[in-house]
Amino acid sequence: MIPNSSAYDRLTARAARIATIDEAAGMLGWDAAAMMPEGGAAARGDQLAVLAGLSHGLLVAPEVAGDLAEAEAAGTGDDPWRAANLRLLRHAHTRATALPADLVEAQVRANSACETIWREARRTADFALVRPALEEVFNLIRQQAAALAPALGMTPWDALADASQRGVTEADIAPVFNAYEAFLRDALPRAEALQAARPAPLRPPGPFPIETQEVLSRRMAHRLGLEPEHSRLDRSAHPFCGGTPTDVRITTRYNEADFSSSLLSTLHETGHALYERGLPTAFARQPVGFAAGMAAHESQSLIVEMQACRSDAFLGWLGGEVHAAFGGDPAPYAPVNLVRLWRRVERGFIRVEADEMTYPAHVILRFRLEQALISGDLRVADLPGAWNAGMQGLLGVTPPDDAQGVLQDIHWYDGLVGYFPSYTLGAMAAAQLMAAARRAVPGLDAALGRGDLGPLLGWLRANVHGVGSLLGFNDLLRAATSKPLDPADFTAHLTERYLT
Amino acid sequence: MIPNSSAYDRLTARAARIATIDEAAGMLGWDAAAMMPEGGAAARGDQLAVLAGLSHGLLVAPEVAGDLAEAEAAGTGDDPWRAANLRLLRHAHTRATALPADLVEAQVRANSACETIWREARRTADFALVRPALEEVFNLIRQQAAALAPALGMTPWDALADASQRGVTEADIAPVFNAYEAFLRDALPRAEALQAARPAPLRPPGPFPIETQEVLSRRMAHRLGLEPEHSRLDRSAHPFCGGTPTDVRITTRYNEADFSSSLLSTLHETGHALYERGLPTAFARQPVGFAAGMAAHESQSLIVEMQACRSDAFLGWLGGEVHAAFGGDPAPYAPVNLVRLWRRVERGFIRVEADEMTYPAHVILRFRLEQALISGDLRVADLPGAWNAGMQGLLGVTPPDDAQGVLQDIHWYDGLVGYFPSYTLGAMAAAQLMAAARRAVPGLDAALGRGDLGPLLGWLRANVHGVGSLLGFNDLLRAATSKPLDPADFTAHLTERYLT
Repeated sequence: MIPNSSAYDRLTARAARIATIDEAAGMLGWDAAAMMPEGGAAARGDQLAVLAGLSHGLLVAPEVAGDLAEAEAAGTGDDPWRAANLRLLRHAHTRATALPADLVEAQVRANSACETIWREARRTADFALVRPALEEVFNLIRQQAAALAPALGMTPWDALADASQRGVTEADIAPVFNAYEAFLRDALPRAEALQAARPAPLRPPGPFPIETQEVLSRRMAHRLGLEPEHSRLDRSAHPFCGGTPTDVRITTRYNEADFSSSLLSTLHETGHALYERGLPTAFARQPVGFAAGMAAHESQSLIVEMQACRSDAFLGWLGGEVHAAFGGDPAPYAPVNLVRLWRRVERGFIRVEADEMTYPAHVILRFRLEQALISGDLRVADLPGAWNAGMQGLLGVTPPDDAQGVLQDIHWYDGLVGYFPSYTLGAMAAAQLMAAARRAVPGLDAALGRGDLGPLLGWLRANVHGVGSLLGFNDLLRAATSKPLDPADFTAHLTERYLT
Repeated sequence: MIPNSSAYDRLTARAARIATIDEAAGMLGWDAAAMMPEGGAAARGDQLAVLAGLSHGLLVAPEVAGDLAEAEAAGTGDDPWRAANLRLLRHAHTRATALPADLVEAQVRANSACETIWREARRTADFALVRPALEEVFNLIRQQAAALAPALGMTPWDALADASQRGVTEADIAPVFNAYEAFLRDALPRAEALQAARPAPLRPPGPFPIETQEVLSRRMAHRLGLEPEHSRLDRSAHPFCGGTPTDVRITTRYNEADFSSSLLSTLHETGHALYERGLPTAFARQPVGFAAGMAAHESQSLIVEMQACRSDAFLGWLGGEVHAAFGGDPAPYAPVNLVRLWRRVERGFIRVEADEMTYPAHVILRFRLEQALISGDLRVADLPGAWNAGMQGLLGVTPPDDAQGVLQDIHWYDGLVGYFPSYTLGAMAAAQLMAAARRAVPGLDAALGRGDLGPLLGWLRANVHGVGSLLGFNDLLRAATSKPLDPADFTAHLTERYLT
């Protein structure tokens, strides 16, 4: 690729080229969700497939194995960044070359077909409709896991989950989730009782003009530190954060009857966006320069949305801003009411609508079910029953139909297994990081009370964002908080917020 | 690429892959102009450079020459589409392989550097600032032309212009332009005298809310036949048409004090978009399935904007629509006033603001100057003087400074030579096509009077859009109008519109 360059330099040049193609694909993915007219979907699918093929082809090219071996033999000196970058390059190459091309192609086809049928199945709450397609998806996922596991030296489920968050295993997660289940069994009824004893929240009376909501959402994102010259806020059916570190694209959705959804999801996506903005520019487009994984990413969205912005201090400031935007009776915007409105627990059916105390139960259910599906202990045909039994066991509720049960999330139907724990690992890490930041940064809450995320953001830049993928998930937490993942900070946070 | 396939099939698969990468790049180019925050510019430049390199690499890959020779030897049967497609593939390959890689790289760097300096030079009306960079750009363009000319069997200027519009040469264009200059010398003073004898147009009193203008522009684009499910209308500094045939992206810009600019530019870009929408889907992503060149493209924007939408019939309908949108005094929206407002001649300095009668003079000036620059008869240092003398000779005016003269257009400063004639060839072709459509389609003008472009569009679909690149520019006109390019239809159109 570059004559007379070292193997390491050839690899980083290749990584940069791959990352640049992936950036192009990411932008086109954002466009598909936020901008594209429906008639462009078929052409867009082709564009993304060609770019994915080019990116994959560069990673598995014949000369890469030799360059990796040569670079590893030469060593990276005592530079931990170069050492980590090389390890991550090796890891990406191992993952990419472990899968036979015909399996990858079969999965692309099966996932795409299943996802299409799933949309109809969810609409009609008809699991039987999608069952054959989902069986094929899981059949191929099991083959994928069987191919990856020996190459990576992992269990099959870990080999799948590794794509979402490196360095966290089912053996790590299972006891954490079991302990949380026990906490929840005690805590949830108590939180419900306390909540029932308080006045019901006042609902701010709408309508809330979409334009006003959009101006407010943009102002809040910028206020939290997201620079307008490096970001956009647009609309999509499901909020997400996309784009590149110098051009972050976040989205939200607006409901004229309730501004909470757009405002809170914007705060959440801004957390993701700030992480991207703070990644180490010296390693841009290198594996070590990317975010540390999906659990790490979720920790940054949740530390902003749940830890900082739903804190007493910040809500005191935010209420005034929201009231100034919409006008009318100030009472619903008083901090005490916003707390009642935005910090409620509820035994619901839908993960994405869940509060922070019950959300992990939704994740635990999925974690257990997908492990059983991968191991072969659970058949796809038995999934709806197992789902409903699990919901009854964890939250004491049974979905009225499969649309509000096993059909609610796209992930499995699109071939994605091992992702769900990231949501809860991220929530736990967010609490742990927030506790450490509060200890380290005097005046952090006082600043939040002025709508100023600056002190928290400065600490996150130094301890999380700027570290990129230099450290694995637990090492990142250890460096930032002096201990690996410790769910006690999360349960302490919930106890303080919901049980006192 | 595809085992056991014919050479022709391998080539079309390759062409489709190249076109799909180019589509991705096109979408990212649209995004850069319409959506991207400024902080994303550097990363976007890298993305576009990598995609351009991948696309180019596929076209010049070693196996292409063999496949072309094999496919040409095998023949394409009696299918004119396949024959034309193979000829165009050969032509693209010849162009791409004629240029040494180091020259291409040097041009990318020189053009980019010159364009950056040009922005400052135009702002400060300081040609001397950009002169050295422009000298380097033209030095490299002359090398480019010298490399292309023998490979294509063309003169140097023709070899450059071939990239914009195949099949039209300087030998074709020069007499047409000389004849137009003679026509203009007689017609322009007469048009000015007639105009001076009529009442001045009433200016519709603003302000015109941007939101209302945008709703109106979208409604007009859709009314002309551009399907919302296959298109977007957004904003950019300079209006353009981008995207892909199933997802066309047009842009405009809004001025609160005057809706004319956004409305008329939307009609123009809609003409481009309708061409893209009507290209032959059976040859999508193949050379023969693309538009027939920039002059052909401009003919389609101008037949919509200038021929159809500024006709008496359409203005009678459009005035009512615009008045309904903005309200107020109806007098400025009466057809007789819109004619006075939107069909005026004026000896201006700026090409993009020129009316349809004087616009060719701006093009003729550039055509002559760039030929002299390429042949070496004119030095870059002498360009401002030659420009001003040319303007005086053609239109009898001299720009007050170089910002309104030689610095006004980006094209040369970005390394683009041979493009300008497309604007006027397109205007002439538009008049010729409109005359033929009027003869062929009964009720065409009656439909325009109802705001219905359908009959014209149906004829264009059959005779221009659906033909793709099957025919060269003159053959396209011959098939549609029974004669090659004939400027008499354009001068007849101007005579009827401005001299009676």
